[in-house]
Amino acid sequence: MRYISRKKSKDVGLPPGSLVYQGEKRSEDVKITVIDYSEKSVQEMVTKNVEDCFPFKDQPSVTWINIDGLHKVDIIEKIGEHFDLHPLVLEDILNISQRPKTEDFENYIYTVLKMFTYNKQENETNIEQVSIVIGSNFVISFQEKEGDIFDPVRDRIRFNKGHIRKMKSDYLAYSLIDTVVDNYFIVLEEIGEQIESVEDELSKNPDPEPETLQTIHGLKRDVLFLRKSIWPLREVINTLNRNESRLIYKTTQLFLKDVYDHVIQTIETLDTYREMLTSMLDLYLSSINNRMNEVMKVLTIIATVFIPLTFIAGIYGMNFEYMPELYWKWSYPILWMIMVSASLFMFAYFKKKKWL
Amino acid sequence: MRYISRKKSKDVGLPPGSLVYQGEKRSEDVKITVIDYSEKSVQEMVTKNVEDCFPFKDQPSVTWINIDGLHKVDIIEKIGEHFDLHPLVLEDILNISQRPKTEDFENYIYTVLKMFTYNKQENETNIEQVSIVIGSNFVISFQEKEGDIFDPVRDRIRFNKGHIRKMKSDYLAYSLIDTVVDNYFIVLEEIGEQIESVEDELSKNPDPEPETLQTIHGLKRDVLFLRKSIWPLREVINTLNRNESRLIYKTTQLFLKDVYDHVIQTIETLDTYREMLTSMLDLYLSSINNRMNEVMKVLTIIATVFIPLTFIAGIYGMNFEYMPELYWKWSYPILWMIMVSASLFMFAYFKKKKWL
Amino acid sequence: MRYISRKKSKDVGLPPGSLVYQGEKRSEDVKITVIDYSEKSVQEMVTKNVEDCFPFKDQPSVTWINIDGLHKVDIIEKIGEHFDLHPLVLEDILNISQRPKTEDFENYIYTVLKMFTYNKQENETNIEQVSIVIGSNFVISFQEKEGDIFDPVRDRIRFNKGHIRKMKSDYLAYSLIDTVVDNYFIVLEEIGEQIESVEDELSKNPDPEPETLQTIHGLKRDVLFLRKSIWPLREVINTLNRNESRLIYKTTQLFLKDVYDHVIQTIETLDTYREMLTSMLDLYLSSINNRMNEVMKVLTIIATVFIPLTFIAGIYGMNFEYMPELYWKWSYPILWMIMVSASLFMFAYFKKKKWL
Amino acid sequence: MRYISRKKSKDVGLPPGSLVYQGEKRSEDVKITVIDYSEKSVQEMVTKNVEDCFPFKDQPSVTWINIDGLHKVDIIEKIGEHFDLHPLVLEDILNISQRPKTEDFENYIYTVLKMFTYNKQENETNIEQVSIVIGSNFVISFQEKEGDIFDPVRDRIRFNKGHIRKMKSDYLAYSLIDTVVDNYFIVLEEIGEQIESVEDELSKNPDPEPETLQTIHGLKRDVLFLRKSIWPLREVINTLNRNESRLIYKTTQLFLKDVYDHVIQTIETLDTYREMLTSMLDLYLSSINNRMNEVMKVLTIIATVFIPLTFIAGIYGMNFEYMPELYWKWSYPILWMIMVSASLFMFAYFKKKKWL
Amino acid sequence: MRYISRKKSKDVGLPPGSLVYQGEKRSEDVKITVIDYSEKSVQEMVTKNVEDCFPFKDQPSVTWINIDGLHKVDIIEKIGEHFDLHPLVLEDILNISQRPKTEDFENYIYTVLKMFTYNKQENETNIEQVSIVIGSNFVISFQEKEGDIFDPVRDRIRFNKGHIRKMKSDYLAYSLIDTVVDNYFIVLEEIGEQIESVEDELSKNPDPEPETLQTIHGLKRDVLFLRKSIWPLREVINTLNRNESRLIYKTTQLFLKDVYDHVIQTIETLDTYREMLTSMLDLYLSSINNRMNEVMKVLTIIATVFIPLTFIAGIYGMNFEYMPELYWKWSYPILWMIMVSASLFMFAYFKKKKWL
Ligand SMILES: [Mg+2]
Ligand SMILES: [Mg+2]
Ligand SMILES: [Mg+2]
Ligand SMILES: [Mg+2]
Ligand SMILES: [Mg+2]
Ligand SMILES: [Mg+2]
Ligand SMILES: [Mg+2]
Ligand SMILES: [Mg+2]
Ligand SMILES: [Mg+2]
Ligand SMILES: [Mg+2]
Ligand SMILES: [Mg+2]
Ligand SMILES: [Mg+2]
Ligand SMILES: [Mg+2]
Ligand SMILES: [Mg+2]
Ligand SMILES: [Mg+2]
Ligand SMILES: [Mg+2]
Ligand SMILES: [Mg+2]
Ligand SMILES: [Mg+2]
Ligand SMILES: [Mg+2]
Ligand SMILES: [Mg+2]
Ligand SMILES: [Mg+2]
Ligand SMILES: [Mg+2]
Ligand SMILES: [Mg+2]
Ligand SMILES: [Mg+2]
Ligand SMILES: [Mg+2]
Ligand SMILES: [Mg+2]
Ligand SMILES: [Mg+2]
Ligand SMILES: [Mg+2]
Ligand SMILES: [Mg+2]
Ligand SMILES: [Mg+2]
Ligand SMILES: [Mg+2]
Repeated sequence: MRYISRKKSKDVGLPPGSLVYQGEKRSEDVKITVIDYSEKSVQEMVTKNVEDCFPFKDQPSVTWINIDGLHKVDIIEKIGEHFDLHPLVLEDILNISQRPKTEDFENYIYTVLKMFTYNKQENETNIEQVSIVIGSNFVISFQEKEGDIFDPVRDRIRFNKGHIRKMKSDYLAYSLIDTVVDNYFIVLEEIGEQIESVEDELSKNPDPEPETLQTIHGLKRDVLFLRKSIWPLREVINTLNRNESRLIYKTTQLFLKDVYDHVIQTIETLDTYREMLTSMLDLYLSSINNRMNEVMKVLTIIATVFIPLTFIAGIYGMNFEYMPELYWKWSYPILWMIMVSASLFMFAYFKKKKWL
Repeated sequence: MRYISRKKSKDVGLPPGSLVYQGEKRSEDVKITVIDYSEKSVQEMVTKNVEDCFPFKDQPSVTWINIDGLHKVDIIEKIGEHFDLHPLVLEDILNISQRPKTEDFENYIYTVLKMFTYNKQENETNIEQVSIVIGSNFVISFQEKEGDIFDPVRDRIRFNKGHIRKMKSDYLAYSLIDTVVDNYFIVLEEIGEQIESVEDELSKNPDPEPETLQTIHGLKRDVLFLRKSIWPLREVINTLNRNESRLIYKTTQLFLKDVYDHVIQTIETLDTYREMLTSMLDLYLSSINNRMNEVMKVLTIIATVFIPLTFIAGIYGMNFEYMPELYWKWSYPILWMIMVSASLFMFAYFKKKKWL
Repeated sequence: MRYISRKKSKDVGLPPGSLVYQGEKRSEDVKITVIDYSEKSVQEMVTKNVEDCFPFKDQPSVTWINIDGLHKVDIIEKIGEHFDLHPLVLEDILNISQRPKTEDFENYIYTVLKMFTYNKQENETNIEQVSIVIGSNFVISFQEKEGDIFDPVRDRIRFNKGHIRKMKSDYLAYSLIDTVVDNYFIVLEEIGEQIESVEDELSKNPDPEPETLQTIHGLKRDVLFLRKSIWPLREVINTLNRNESRLIYKTTQLFLKDVYDHVIQTIETLDTYREMLTSMLDLYLSSINNRMNEVMKVLTIIATVFIPLTFIAGIYGMNFEYMPELYWKWSYPILWMIMVSASLFMFAYFKKKKWL
Repeated sequence: MRYISRKKSKDVGLPPGSLVYQGEKRSEDVKITVIDYSEKSVQEMVTKNVEDCFPFKDQPSVTWINIDGLHKVDIIEKIGEHFDLHPLVLEDILNISQRPKTEDFENYIYTVLKMFTYNKQENETNIEQVSIVIGSNFVISFQEKEGDIFDPVRDRIRFNKGHIRKMKSDYLAYSLIDTVVDNYFIVLEEIGEQIESVEDELSKNPDPEPETLQTIHGLKRDVLFLRKSIWPLREVINTLNRNESRLIYKTTQLFLKDVYDHVIQTIETLDTYREMLTSMLDLYLSSINNRMNEVMKVLTIIATVFIPLTFIAGIYGMNFEYMPELYWKWSYPILWMIMVSASLFMFAYFKKKKWL
Repeated sequence: MRYISRKKSKDVGLPPGSLVYQGEKRSEDVKITVIDYSEKSVQEMVTKNVEDCFPFKDQPSVTWINIDGLHKVDIIEKIGEHFDLHPLVLEDILNISQRPKTEDFENYIYTVLKMFTYNKQENETNIEQVSIVIGSNFVISFQEKEGDIFDPVRDRIRFNKGHIRKMKSDYLAYSLIDTVVDNYFIVLEEIGEQIESVEDELSKNPDPEPETLQTIHGLKRDVLFLRKSIWPLREVINTLNRNESRLIYKTTQLFLKDVYDHVIQTIETLDTYREMLTSMLDLYLSSINNRMNEVMKVLTIIATVFIPLTFIAGIYGMNFEYMPELYWKWSYPILWMIMVSASLFMFAYFKKKKWL
């Protein structure tokens, strides 16, 4: 999950509202999905032709238009015209490194947030920006590419599970946001498991691998990036819940408060992760230090014991003619005794100093 | 006390209010205890059958229903129906990694907090989530499993100690919260003693064990975890005390203010612990550094003294035919004198540099 | 000054207002001192019998009752009854690790703060908790044991110095708080001098003692502990000064503002101390590092110069039959020249690298 | 990009409003550019004579006067007189280390901000202070020297792109600020690429160059400097947008809100960069540590294996007359066997300790 | 600039308003200077006799009384009486470690701040506390000793430069504060130059001197001390500007806002300095580490190459009777070849590991 959110500088100097797609080049078609429902009926449609979904706007039923792909700017432009969206909103939809936010334009509310999809098979987290426009009887969601986490919501509409079919567009928008937030927990669980496995390694292995350092740093970056993406959601939901828009009904606010709780819980978990990772980094570095200490002790013990002994041996390896000790009978065994007792003494000294 | 609060992702995509037990699998029965009391009388009952406690609801006496076990979702559901609790409240009761909070639903107040039970015998801290629903004449407390710290409160009711029998349900709820907070001090004392024992070791032993590092890190995690669990209680009690609910009487607010003081004291103690642990970690690392220094000094002194001497001995161990010194009579004793004075000089040098 | 403020867990589960003395066991008598004064007259009394001071309550003169000792719970209880103090206040008086605070109970104000008494002879700082109850015509002060810093206030009353005899009980309470805060500066001066002496040592001595580390850590703990004890005083004085109680007159508020200034000054000095100690710790650790560097350089220079030379000597110490150099006439002096120039070259190299 | 914003102390003690140019000495002429436009027409003029642009003031069309150069104080003075600017505003225009701010003087608004121009050819970022005075029908922009990033705005006016020709002076000012903020992204992209290239090096190369340290520190300084220059822009735009001036129309406020979003995004990106750089510094230092560990291990292994062996060889190099082993037939091969097995044993030991 | 602001504990226990001079002992006379001016005329006077300046109080012209010296308490007392200053204000004037603050006493405003005077010749920064009492037609400034930075203000009054002669006492007070703040920039420039020179040394010299560490720490302390002295000025000027006193006219408020800007700029510059110093400390420590690494590499290379070779030489220095190699003809040259190729191999190995 390497992803620095950075507004590409493609639209520098252009007049405001200039529509420039800020993401990677794509060539596939833009897929447009419509689900139109009321308490009684559901109707679905998939098309490439954006005009196909305009007629739904004038019916009292709730219409959810989902756009998969932002690279065809003219589609965004046509939607903007038909649903009367402000050019700056369209610009924000195309700027895929937009910070999560909510803006109220009386006739509609514009909300943008980050969707994390954890792919178990490839052990990869995919990040997409989702823009949600909430109108009185429609919701338009814009995604960067096909594939999302909203199928449970679609099923609830299709099979009339829960209250969703009885509620208005605000409840649909809540359901989408709630699903996005629920999926944060899946990504968190994944990261939590990785953190615990590294922690296990650190507490068992006194000499951790250098790669562990890279893993900890990688996890730290993921956590920081997630935190940065999720933190503004507090404000997003608070703004929706502040009771000022006629589009958000009181019944939905209680549900939004529940999502808010989950966002707080996500952020607190990320903070805990961050503290754990910092602590683990300290532990790693201390282990390295402890290890170095041990290495140095071995070197010092060996050198301290043998260097003086080698010196003594060197003395009697000298070729002076007049060295009386050389000719004594007991010199050699006495020297051995001296050397053995010197080493024993040193080992005792190291023992006392607890180096052994 | 290893416990990362992490909402399990079991209910991702479910409609809000879906009741899914988020904890470990359990098979024992759910134990339901009822204590019904007024100033004059007390009545107790233990049952497995949730319907048994419904009749108490309609009496003016205060009824305390305690549920030990959240794994049978249908029991929670029946209580929810009978006492008219919001589905999101029921969902929160089952989500055992809920952040402490208070929510006011006019007819009842929902409060959730963390209960720490320190078990002296097994030197273990047990953590349970306690949900408290405060109604006008009842209190329902939900715990994860049997066994709690509320026996002193039960005794006060049974034996009419203090004012509890004269007061309403709000005072009972206060008594439960007060008992939970009082028990935080027991856990804090335990941690404080461990911290002091590590500190003692650090100040006495110039060469601390590598395990000390793991102990300090473990204590730090415990402190962080406790802080995270207790910190939101400030807001919990403030919300209860904010004078807005008709369920909390003025007489009880003074007592809640007293609990608030204790929560603040707990948090400040935890902050002090955290600072002490950080300081102890620094001390540990500095000790390691100091120790390494000492090891290096020994190595350097030995090597600096003996390596040059060995070199000199090596010189006169050479087999050149023409080395006049070899045949002088006083070479050997003179060499010894040179070597002895060289080492004395070096020791004096090290003494001056304070390495000895 | 080793003192972790930790509410002892002696009253866990007791009903609120249960009076349990939380401090160490004591056996001496509780000393009760009364000073009763008006502009015209002063009257003093010392007693062990708490009932002796009750008659003063009904006179219009200001009565200062000072209790030295909290270990006889019945005395506290009788005072509580006679002066109509709330049970929770009595509980707080006995809880000697109470956080400083002020509470307004209409008829009286309860204030608790920490008194630091520096004892020059024994170079020791004594900490006591002082509770002050301010009534309309009385002040009751509770201390843990005999001995305090209030003698200057007593003398001002006895000898009619300053305005104290013309003022009400609020001014007496101010005088006590002011004296407590003034004494913080004495403790601060003491710590400041210790910090400066350690700093002097650090800047003069390139190889600081390991004990310095312990001293710095000890000072840091003292500073943190003082900060924690003094910090809440800001709120204490603000609450007194907030103009809401009929017991605090406007004339006294200006004086309380002056104490507030001093509290802020104390906290800022403590913050400066903290920053200095952190900086000194860095300096200490860097010195250790620098020293290690120096040690390693000596080792490396000696080893780098002599190990190759010893090798060369070893070569010509070999006993091969066919080593032509051994029989040349100038081998030995030429070898010396080679070895001397090699060492000179190495010293030049080290000089260039600035290792010498 | 080395640039410490530091008000030069040239005007110490002068009365307020004294006009002293605070920047480097310059000798070139000051270039004055005027663009005057309405929906229907555009008129341009370049001059050195400041009086030439005064007549435009009295026409209803929007007049943009751009001053390139602050070193001729009399020009600033004349503009100040003619457009009735406060002496303190003129002083601020000349103080090129002014912190970004907005001040409302009823008849005009004074805004000052930092313009960053990234020069791709010379890989250099140029910083200029831009002061903008917004009047009812004019905008005066003051720059330190010729060359800026406003050409796209000029083109939009000349060729009637976007809405700019239909709008008032407030929209022109917005366009200038928007262009400045857009250019921040270009500088950010540049820094981001450098950070990523350093990060790549760090994750690939286990032994990073010492220069990497300097690069990381340099990038950190750039990021801190940018943050300091951009951070106050939040307040600048908020003040403009606070709906209080009659000079800022409601239609423009929505556009200012959009710039505000971009400023926040810039600051968050800079915060991410800062965290990444801190993390990279840790990684660098840990790599150095790991490397040292490896070096020490090699030394220790070699020394531990060969020092004892050399000692044994030294023993049998002694010249004692009575050393029975010397005359045994199998001494030499047996010794070899002992030495080989000793080294094998040591290698096994190191293997077990995972030093190899 | 070594200066810990610490209220001397000389007045512990004294009644409030007791006048005790808190600074060092001084014996020189107190110098009193009066400048009395209106738009038309100026009158100056220097005296030791405080009563001489009392007549000026009753004239409508603005009177500036400057007191150089606080060690004669009776002078302060007489001024206090004549100008009706509160005893607590007099106490604050004498307490030369007063935190900067402003207090409004309806008839006069009391402001206290720190004056820094940089002395170029002696490269020393002098710190003095300046108290300013602003009355309706007078300003009294109190300094610790003779010598200040207000001569430019005196000249503006004498020679009628700027608007000062046309304005009231509030503008005079502003001029004094402005001059104090302007001089902060001179001290900042001085520190900035020192920081840059240390930074230059660090980036050029890979092996910085140990003194650099002390210099960085000294600069850090200066910056922290300045920050602590200047930070409260924000509040000081805000309080003056809050439009509540009848003594501060609207015309002066704009000028005070300008000083406020400069105070903010000072604080931000100090924050930048602090960050730079922290960064430089890291750089210093990393350089030390890098250096140690290099030293260790040299040692390891030399030892790794020569210790095994010395062992081999030691082998053939043994005196065993039965060592066939000793008698072979080519042993010696073959051994040399082996040793040379072994060292070449090792150098290649080190080259590959990039240790060379
Ligand atoms: Mg644009
Ligand atoms: Mg936008
Ligand atoms: Mg998608
Ligand atoms: Mg959810
Ligand atoms: Mg964010
Ligand atoms: Mg943030
Ligand atoms: Mg937090
Ligand atoms: Mg759900
Ligand atoms: Mg919930
Ligand atoms: Mg929590
Ligand atoms: Mg339980
Ligand atoms: Mg309690
Ligand atoms: Mg929290
Ligand atoms: Mg209790
Ligand atoms: Mg209490
Ligand atoms: Mg006492
Ligand atoms: Mg005082
Ligand atoms: Mg505190
Ligand atoms: Mg601060
Ligand atoms: Mg000026
Ligand atoms: Mg200015
Ligand atoms: Mg320019
Ligand atoms: Mg823009
Ligand atoms: Mg800033
Ligand atoms: Mg006093
Ligand atoms: Mg004062
Ligand atoms: Mg201060
Ligand atoms: Mg002076
Ligand atoms: Mg100024
Ligand atoms: Mg401050
Ligand atoms: Mg800032």
